[in-house]
Amino acid sequence: MTTDDSRKVTIAAIARLAGVSVPTVSRVVNGRSDVAPQTRERVEELLTRHGYRRRRPSMRPSSGLIDLVFNDLDSPWAVEIIRGVEDVAHAAGIGTVVSAIHRRSSSARQWLDNLRTRSTQGVIFVTSTLEPPLQAELRRLNIPVVIVDPAGVPPQEAPTVGATNWAGSLRATEYLLGLGHRRIGFIAGPPQLMCSRARLDGYRTALESAGLGVAEELIRPGNFYHEAGFAAGNQLLRLPEPPTAIFAASDQMALGVYEAVRRRGLRVPDDISVVGFDDLPEVEWCAPPLTTVRQPLAKMGLLAARTVLRLAQGERIESPRVELATELVVRDSAAPPAT
Amino acid sequence: MTTDDSRKVTIAAIARLAGVSVPTVSRVVNGRSDVAPQTRERVEELLTRHGYRRRRPSMRPSSGLIDLVFNDLDSPWAVEIIRGVEDVAHAAGIGTVVSAIHRRSSSARQWLDNLRTRSTQGVIFVTSTLEPPLQAELRRLNIPVVIVDPAGVPPQEAPTVGATNWAGSLRATEYLLGLGHRRIGFIAGPPQLMCSRARLDGYRTALESAGLGVAEELIRPGNFYHEAGFAAGNQLLRLPEPPTAIFAASDQMALGVYEAVRRRGLRVPDDISVVGFDDLPEVEWCAPPLTTVRQPLAKMGLLAARTVLRLAQGERIESPRVELATELVVRDSAAPPAT
Repeated sequence: MTTDDSRKVTIAAIARLAGVSVPTVSRVVNGRSDVAPQTRERVEELLTRHGYRRRRPSMRPSSGLIDLVFNDLDSPWAVEIIRGVEDVAHAAGIGTVVSAIHRRSSSARQWLDNLRTRSTQGVIFVTSTLEPPLQAELRRLNIPVVIVDPAGVPPQEAPTVGATNWAGSLRATEYLLGLGHRRIGFIAGPPQLMCSRARLDGYRTALESAGLGVAEELIRPGNFYHEAGFAAGNQLLRLPEPPTAIFAASDQMALGVYEAVRRRGLRVPDDISVVGFDDLPEVEWCAPPLTTVRQPLAKMGLLAARTVLRLAQGERIESPRVELATELVVRDSAAPPAT
Repeated sequence: MTTDDSRKVTIAAIARLAGVSVPTVSRVVNGRSDVAPQTRERVEELLTRHGYRRRRPSMRPSSGLIDLVFNDLDSPWAVEIIRGVEDVAHAAGIGTVVSAIHRRSSSARQWLDNLRTRSTQGVIFVTSTLEPPLQAELRRLNIPVVIVDPAGVPPQEAPTVGATNWAGSLRATEYLLGLGHRRIGFIAGPPQLMCSRARLDGYRTALESAGLGVAEELIRPGNFYHEAGFAAGNQLLRLPEPPTAIFAASDQMALGVYEAVRRRGLRVPDDISVVGFDDLPEVEWCAPPLTTVRQPLAKMGLLAARTVLRLAQGERIESPRVELATELVVRDSAAPPAT
């Protein structure tokens, strides 16, 4: 047996080489989960070595579903993304299956098993991806994947959709510099997300371009949630030389900073300026209305849905990475520093 | 031909009576949309008159999907409901298809057409229902329906899930009365929703039980959104004798009232008390943190999902209407009236 392209390797041959039954190889080929991991690995290795070509499952194109997968359904921005995806899918006569995998591999495994029974046309992951073994299984199912705001380097060169995080962060920091701020605190998002890193880098670059050093004590870790903004806000306000402005990498963290400011009897923006990132619908209604960097969340969902549907139809995507423009929305939470 | 139960009416007989082909009757029976409305009506009428019994479509039980239908995906509480539904469905190996029908019948029609191709196990409507012709079609498809917070009287005795809106509203109004308020404004939700009416009635009953008359100028219409709360708040504050407290039937409207209060240079709760309804996650973080009536939104979604899955398995539901308890969450937005 050779790996010569002209000779087609059969499932029977792979079964013989692996010392397993033909149905077992078939199960591996079809991405089913009822195969021992070691067996699967051995069979996969032989399939790859001998250049076995999987056929695209014939059921796939006819299914009227796409999958939208979040880590958790616990943030108001989830509904923005869902709205964008649903708009496109609904118009295309396709249902949007929304799932949360809770960052647990057992939950992701359950999701993947469910996915197999219902056959989906494509999957959109929001900020999350699967662990490598589950990624490999998804790949075996031949289901196109698009990632919104990926964590780390996206797997298998899946197309990604995001916002111009770096540029938005640069712009917000420049705006605060323009108001006269020189000590600007920054509260970061989860470091594993590319969008978090881009926001931090935009902040650093703005400071450096203004000829200012980056004071490391002014940069605090966060996770996008209120509580982290509150905690980091308290830390920053407690510094011997506190910042005159705080730029939080999410709106929810910015509202956490609001609370930290209030608890100290201080006022936004009179005593300290605060800028957020996202432009969730509700921040227009907080006190004071939040100046923030608008991410076009619904449009990001919309683009992700269009992309995954194109992939499902076998089209090629021109650009593996698309970033939609962010925009600084100036409201009332930033002012020149108190003198 | 009689309607005697012992004689089974056939599709062929109905076709003859209606003067249409057998396939046309078959299409009506199977709930397909490619039949002229007048023909459908005539055939339906004959099917009913002669007691034709539809068989449950055999595909139904094997599908791994339930449908969750909103009017619009534009509110942070949508994500709370989705979370509850998804939790139950995910654990049961079932996908949750999320749709928005935008209060437009064309969009609802599109959704219903999509539904037919993917075969769902059950449908959960949130606040919405379909127009009567679409309801009839859904009934023909034999798909169980559960409604969360129904508008008006729910169709076909579908089970409904809600919160104890009346009791929650009563409790919040009694709380304000207990603080010493005598002029309490109320901003209502959309009048077609049962939950809105129950909240208004709880408010009225609390006032009447306290021996106070209900001043009609203190009751303002609303729609649950920020803008309506802002507008109604402005109207109430402009009254010759303004209220000392405002109870808004949603958190978003309460935050609209906050803004109206701020714009007049007044403060919550020093100058006026504000109470909301929902307990969305973010109201803990507004200024001041909002005192509100907690609706267990995720639990309502969870119960709706369990109910629809039970119905899909042919189980009977003991109670067609379940209300989960609301709870007054006291934070910092209400205080005794300024003297």
